[in-house]
Amino acid sequence: MQLGMIGLGRMGANMVRRLTKGDHQCVVYDLHPQAVQALLHPGATGASSLQDLVSKLSKPRVLWLMLPAAVVDENLALLTPLLEAGDIVIDGGNSYYHDDIRRGAELKARGIHYVDVGTSGGVAGYDRGYCLMIGGDKEAVQHLAPIFATLAPGAGAASPTPGRQPSDSSAEQGYLHCGPQGAGHFVKMVHNGIEYGIMGAYAEGLNILRNANVGKRSHEADAETTPLRNPEHYQYELDLPEITELWRRGSVIGSWLLDLTAGALLQDPKLDHYAGRVSDSGEGRWTINAAIDEAVPVPILSAALFTRFSSRGEGDFADKVLSAMRQGFGGHVEKPAQQKKLED
Amino acid sequence: MQLGMIGLGRMGANMVRRLTKGDHQCVVYDLHPQAVQALLHPGATGASSLQDLVSKLSKPRVLWLMLPAAVVDENLALLTPLLEAGDIVIDGGNSYYHDDIRRGAELKARGIHYVDVGTSGGVAGYDRGYCLMIGGDKEAVQHLAPIFATLAPGAGAASPTPGRQPSDSSAEQGYLHCGPQGAGHFVKMVHNGIEYGIMGAYAEGLNILRNANVGKRSHEADAETTPLRNPEHYQYELDLPEITELWRRGSVIGSWLLDLTAGALLQDPKLDHYAGRVSDSGEGRWTINAAIDEAVPVPILSAALFTRFSSRGEGDFADKVLSAMRQGFGGHVEKPAQQKKLED
Amino acid sequence: MQLGMIGLGRMGANMVRRLTKGDHQCVVYDLHPQAVQALLHPGATGASSLQDLVSKLSKPRVLWLMLPAAVVDENLALLTPLLEAGDIVIDGGNSYYHDDIRRGAELKARGIHYVDVGTSGGVAGYDRGYCLMIGGDKEAVQHLAPIFATLAPGAGAASPTPGRQPSDSSAEQGYLHCGPQGAGHFVKMVHNGIEYGIMGAYAEGLNILRNANVGKRSHEADAETTPLRNPEHYQYELDLPEITELWRRGSVIGSWLLDLTAGALLQDPKLDHYAGRVSDSGEGRWTINAAIDEAVPVPILSAALFTRFSSRGEGDFADKVLSAMRQGFGGHVEKPAQQKKLED
Amino acid sequence: MQLGMIGLGRMGANMVRRLTKGDHQCVVYDLHPQAVQALLHPGATGASSLQDLVSKLSKPRVLWLMLPAAVVDENLALLTPLLEAGDIVIDGGNSYYHDDIRRGAELKARGIHYVDVGTSGGVAGYDRGYCLMIGGDKEAVQHLAPIFATLAPGAGAASPTPGRQPSDSSAEQGYLHCGPQGAGHFVKMVHNGIEYGIMGAYAEGLNILRNANVGKRSHEADAETTPLRNPEHYQYELDLPEITELWRRGSVIGSWLLDLTAGALLQDPKLDHYAGRVSDSGEGRWTINAAIDEAVPVPILSAALFTRFSSRGEGDFADKVLSAMRQGFGGHVEKPAQQKKLED
Repeated sequence: MQLGMIGLGRMGANMVRRLTKGDHQCVVYDLHPQAVQALLHPGATGASSLQDLVSKLSKPRVLWLMLPAAVVDENLALLTPLLEAGDIVIDGGNSYYHDDIRRGAELKARGIHYVDVGTSGGVAGYDRGYCLMIGGDKEAVQHLAPIFATLAPGAGAASPTPGRQPSDSSAEQGYLHCGPQGAGHFVKMVHNGIEYGIMGAYAEGLNILRNANVGKRSHEADAETTPLRNPEHYQYELDLPEITELWRRGSVIGSWLLDLTAGALLQDPKLDHYAGRVSDSGEGRWTINAAIDEAVPVPILSAALFTRFSSRGEGDFADKVLSAMRQGFGGHVEKPAQQKKLED
Repeated sequence: MQLGMIGLGRMGANMVRRLTKGDHQCVVYDLHPQAVQALLHPGATGASSLQDLVSKLSKPRVLWLMLPAAVVDENLALLTPLLEAGDIVIDGGNSYYHDDIRRGAELKARGIHYVDVGTSGGVAGYDRGYCLMIGGDKEAVQHLAPIFATLAPGAGAASPTPGRQPSDSSAEQGYLHCGPQGAGHFVKMVHNGIEYGIMGAYAEGLNILRNANVGKRSHEADAETTPLRNPEHYQYELDLPEITELWRRGSVIGSWLLDLTAGALLQDPKLDHYAGRVSDSGEGRWTINAAIDEAVPVPILSAALFTRFSSRGEGDFADKVLSAMRQGFGGHVEKPAQQKKLED
Repeated sequence: MQLGMIGLGRMGANMVRRLTKGDHQCVVYDLHPQAVQALLHPGATGASSLQDLVSKLSKPRVLWLMLPAAVVDENLALLTPLLEAGDIVIDGGNSYYHDDIRRGAELKARGIHYVDVGTSGGVAGYDRGYCLMIGGDKEAVQHLAPIFATLAPGAGAASPTPGRQPSDSSAEQGYLHCGPQGAGHFVKMVHNGIEYGIMGAYAEGLNILRNANVGKRSHEADAETTPLRNPEHYQYELDLPEITELWRRGSVIGSWLLDLTAGALLQDPKLDHYAGRVSDSGEGRWTINAAIDEAVPVPILSAALFTRFSSRGEGDFADKVLSAMRQGFGGHVEKPAQQKKLED
Repeated sequence: MQLGMIGLGRMGANMVRRLTKGDHQCVVYDLHPQAVQALLHPGATGASSLQDLVSKLSKPRVLWLMLPAAVVDENLALLTPLLEAGDIVIDGGNSYYHDDIRRGAELKARGIHYVDVGTSGGVAGYDRGYCLMIGGDKEAVQHLAPIFATLAPGAGAASPTPGRQPSDSSAEQGYLHCGPQGAGHFVKMVHNGIEYGIMGAYAEGLNILRNANVGKRSHEADAETTPLRNPEHYQYELDLPEITELWRRGSVIGSWLLDLTAGALLQDPKLDHYAGRVSDSGEGRWTINAAIDEAVPVPILSAALFTRFSSRGEGDFADKVLSAMRQGFGGHVEKPAQQKKLED
């Protein structure tokens, strides 16, 4: 099939490569002409503008947007007037599903199909394939099946689930039509919310392992500090790169995120290259919003989100309130920051 | 009554003053002679050593220890050989109740009564009185009733609870025999666990109020940052000193901790005098331990404890793990710390 | 002053009584005529319809809505056509502040002032006064000052904050103009979010105290159950009504919510009259939404909200997922519900 | 090698089978003779008592205990007198590492080696191999290497970690000597703590997906219930078995736990076979205890633990306290349990 790709960042560029490798034709466009140049190869044609892009596509046109969520609407505003009834616009980025619902209705009024695709797989997707969570009307989604099948990892990417009957379910190929507009990004949103929780679970556990030697460090005895009652229980020097490598084989907590963690710790056992300021790109927040609207309790997923906020200093004022209260009722004066405890 | 006080810090010294004002006789001792000197006044006699202290008390002796939890056992080891059957030792500090159970049994073998008293009230206790949570055998606790009655705030400190019948309950006076050894510190421990939770609730809420102007700040649009969807909803400049003062009158969340917070914000509206490194002195930890042993869910109290740990940088390594994972799957590079966002 | 009150439920009716006691004139209206009848007394005139209500008010009219948040908009739609430029509409209920911002703009187009008032104090407000958090334009708020001053508790409701200079701050009277439209309900929203956290802190702590006798109960030893390692540490039978009464005097955690808790436990020490299905009326949710928009970490306030969701069974499906996973990897079969453990 | 296995439950029996398949000789014992009978096969010899077991092993004897943590000490008390210096005792169950430290010291006094092995892999371990986290003295651990190598999954169980140099690290085989006594169970403990967190992350996310149709259900408008503001955002009927199958291919959250979840949902899409009473077998609790001792913040791992407690009704009393408070300040009467919302 032929497809126009708008946005040639990390994700978009790799998706084009995977598509052309699968014998699809791509016309590619990016605000930065050098990104277009860099991607030209057999199967991939460059476009110099949205107009140029649209003119190079045969009808019904298929346009895939792979852009930061914040700029999708402005691009759609430019793109839509260039399209015709029957064309298909796909948002493969991380849009808020509320926007999909709105956009789907707006484009439907012009006869244009809007399909939202939550795309997981990260920078490894070119090799491993992309997991695609799809929302939109059935007709458009079916039309795009060859594209989805090429981008997706394929059935061989996981062992068969015991008890699953032979079927034409595309889920086993790695893509799924989840429901009407927004359903794809809704499922991807929750996917990312889960991802935050899993990541946080590993991170907290590794922090406990790293501090298993706390009994070796000297501790002061004053009214402000709780002495460690049993320092003999915390005399371990644990090797995090080896332990994460170990867990990759046979343990209950094996996962792709663990694979990546083992790789990162191998390169940098103390993770000194990182400051620990953790970004959040929206889906984690929207997941909690959805849970609240649904009255679903999410103590784990929300804790994971708030940990990220705190990592960026957003809780500092609240901490100051605590110190002020402690001084108020107990005359407690804040302890000066000691020599940073994790320094070795 | 006559009482020997060991430990003349913030708490111990004020308790002596309140006792002598109530016509009790105190013999006072501290490792630092100047603390003894500073406290001498009618009703308070100084002692130069534990031996001197014990020799100045008539039998059965009453000894009140007001010491950091970490040094109680070593002081008891020195003190116990100087005592006789029938004497009463009180630990009024913040000991772990496990230690009370052990000490009670050890001292009982010598015929000495051990009484644990969880003491709340902080530096304001001299004026307001101390709330006393007491564990120990009935005989000793009853003997000490005049002491407790003087230290406690008295019935007038709170309005009568509707429906309460006239009774001889000492709870209405502000002291209570909660149960056998350890019961006093157990109740005080949970009291402090609750305190952490309440403090944290105010702190988080005030942080939300403080950031109600976030819509006025410029926000970048990139794949790493979620744009604020509705900046028009966050255009408020809220006056925290005035709001906390307001809430002190008639609101559902009025409390003594709120009174203190209003006072602190009045003096220092941005709390610039604090760095936000919040200590925890043990009871909060033990509260969670007890909850876990009892299988009681405590998501709020534990969150309050962990916030304190994080405020001291103890979560930094976990945050680095998150950044390393994000780089692994998404190629996300950590954003540098921006100009500190709360700076005005 | 003269004021029209729309909505004569628990809150509205008591506010009218407090206003007329303060020599204001009220015209009162409710969808249920019997609610109007029940409230007639010197100073309070009944109205049979919104038209009737409006016609009985002198200009500029002052109308106070005290309605469930869900029906404010439909009432405003009926009311607005009856009003004129210069009139003032007050929403004293628990509206979402987003709605205030929208309504304020809509009414401003007609020259009508819109004032949002977050009202705390509950059913005790008639006696204690109401804590009023106010948003709106300065002119309207100043015009309403006599009303607010009567509804508020007054300066005597709390002891003076140390260091506060004599001023004309209304916060000391118990009402405050917090900012433009929505600011009142924003502050009230966060107030309620804090309230959830404080309530939860007490509730969790009391649950720990209640289970301090867990060491007395028999425990099975099988691979599914962790044995209690130190049953001797959990042999206490603690008296919750007495302990909460105790804490009301001199402790750091004294508060009005504690007063109420002591009263409730006095009447029903095991709280057998309650099933523990806890409602949430919106502000707690919106508080978390605001925190997320602002990137403010709120682990405590969110835990308090999610506990309420769970109390209503909203987490059951997630729990089933856990059981299914445990069976999957470990062959663990769910244990049947034992005889309910808290039954005595 | 020859090995004596004590405890032939799910885990022990499968480990024997995997060992004999790997050409080791096993002498097997269980309190239940039928468990011994059921396991007899080439390579596995039965024992009728601990004495019989010990007598059938050549020296230095290797004994592997695969028992519930609660009965290890009593079995060790019976076993130890039968052993000699140089023998090796392995605890492969889920013991608390504090016990390992104590037992290691006790057995060392008799010249007996004590090795603790945290074993992950569950009922699938026979096929997939077991992930082994090992604590003890180097000599004993090295002696046992052939056993560990057979039980472990082997290097082929995971793709090579990029950048790892060829080495003799056993972690790549699936077993690791983590440190002195207790280190194996410490690492396994934290492993399980992480497991709780990951499981909970999936469970919460799936609960959000399941309730994505909440906008279709009717909602009441009263002061006790927050109306859903945007029901049009919650109109999705999501297919959980298909979505979990989908995520197994190419997504960032792929894992073995997800594989199991997809399998469980395939069999029972609504999980009606489960009541949602989730057990916890100790490691999750000890993980939080260790984190608290180390002052490491663990909001996610603790939330996962507390969710399990709540699933068993352990939070009910706290919920009743909330309802009692709400009635106290607001006159709110608990809403009766509605027709169960998740019923279809």
